[in-house]
Amino acid sequence: MPPAEPITSTANPRLKALVRLRDRRDRDRSGLFLIEGYRELRRAVEAAVPLTEVWCCPALYLGQNEAALVEAARDRGAEVVEVAETPFRKASYRDRPEGLLAVARQFPTGLDRLDPGPAPLLLVVEGIEKPGNLGTMMRTAAAAGAAALIVCDPTTDPFNPNVVRASLGTLFSLPLAVADTPAAIAWLHALGIRTAATTPAATRSHWEADLTGGVAVVVGSEQYGLSAAWLQGATEQVLIPMPGTVDSLNAAMAAGIVLFEAVRQRSQA
Amino acid sequence: MPPAEPITSTANPRLKALVRLRDRRDRDRSGLFLIEGYRELRRAVEAAVPLTEVWCCPALYLGQNEAALVEAARDRGAEVVEVAETPFRKASYRDRPEGLLAVARQFPTGLDRLDPGPAPLLLVVEGIEKPGNLGTMMRTAAAAGAAALIVCDPTTDPFNPNVVRASLGTLFSLPLAVADTPAAIAWLHALGIRTAATTPAATRSHWEADLTGGVAVVVGSEQYGLSAAWLQGATEQVLIPMPGTVDSLNAAMAAGIVLFEAVRQRSQA
Repeated sequence: MPPAEPITSTANPRLKALVRLRDRRDRDRSGLFLIEGYRELRRAVEAAVPLTEVWCCPALYLGQNEAALVEAARDRGAEVVEVAETPFRKASYRDRPEGLLAVARQFPTGLDRLDPGPAPLLLVVEGIEKPGNLGTMMRTAAAAGAAALIVCDPTTDPFNPNVVRASLGTLFSLPLAVADTPAAIAWLHALGIRTAATTPAATRSHWEADLTGGVAVVVGSEQYGLSAAWLQGATEQVLIPMPGTVDSLNAAMAAGIVLFEAVRQRSQA
Repeated sequence: MPPAEPITSTANPRLKALVRLRDRRDRDRSGLFLIEGYRELRRAVEAAVPLTEVWCCPALYLGQNEAALVEAARDRGAEVVEVAETPFRKASYRDRPEGLLAVARQFPTGLDRLDPGPAPLLLVVEGIEKPGNLGTMMRTAAAAGAAALIVCDPTTDPFNPNVVRASLGTLFSLPLAVADTPAAIAWLHALGIRTAATTPAATRSHWEADLTGGVAVVVGSEQYGLSAAWLQGATEQVLIPMPGTVDSLNAAMAAGIVLFEAVRQRSQA
């Protein structure tokens, strides 16, 4: 089959279908999602995420071996669609597009697919609203060596393009499950994984808690914190002491601070 | 003087002047900046930030005692301008405006204005590009009880509206200085404040460093890390060990992780 002509019109119906994948409804309906950027696409190819299309605009490449990456995606079955700069910029959700935008199939996120291994460190988050926060939590958990991220009762779809972006593609390498809170509590309990629920109502600091062995750090939503189900269901509650005048941290920041305290404890255990 | 008529037109020239303050050039020229939102404006009033105008749109109030806050701003000399919903939404830089948008005078940010007191914890950042990161760093440093934030060689203006926003108004309570790197190093050295420069090239972990006493945590830009001047000029270099497969953290996250390790050490010192 000869390569198709490059897409040059912003009115192209395939381009419009691509843009619609920014909407959750369209992602839910199609089971597809968007991956934009060199680093993100590279991580997706490395993780063998099933790609259906790769849209490329060589005029926008930053010179990081994009052509080879596009070929690697093609080898894995992705259709390669070349696009002129103006329509590519329309499809891109970035200020500075890098000329690569892929469509991938959403992968399963059942708890039953997780295999956290012995004595794992996990991150559990509940009700996170901001895609940037959820993506940053993935990136941070991956850096901390967490065995998995469990997303409870999500208000943000983990396949939101801004999650993919803020995660820097760790969405594809960090094992991920989406579950309701009772199911997550039951699953962790069955595996003997302790849970440390972060809440300002706790009296014990996060560094006084034992974060070695099999343990999950549990962080609630930006606005409401953790649900009663988590506060009652966790092995213990911990707080991040804040000596300053401000009594709140960004939810992703709170997760990172407790995860890296766990890294410290585990390095010395 | 009777109250002026509410502004109802999006073509109003004062409204256009307000919107122009989103641009750095206009802020630099006028010495003014924007403060949007209830919590942010409340912190500005509490900190006696000089306000010139408060634009209010009662139809958008969330019911957090906004009218009293507007009166407090008026008592401090701010002109109160009432705006209809459509023009207010045009002036707002938020998705969900809260009906409050103020113009304030930029305050001085010379190093000579800082008085960090004995044995302070400080945060020093260099070359930060993203306003959201700089604002998150302010919020996190304020929560950690830092005595001040020193912003070296900024590429982001600390009076950028998205810094104000991400800082949740801690821009007004956390003492702030803007300086070039050599001046910041000399100032810290003269005060006997040790400096811990975070870099992946370090061999010592951040938890092995002594973060008690007078110490500044130094964090570099998202893309390039710290300059040679900082790497050579710091008392010591520290790295955040990352057991995971991803070898990078968001710059604000890195700052928070090291600052809260300092909080831990200082609580036990």
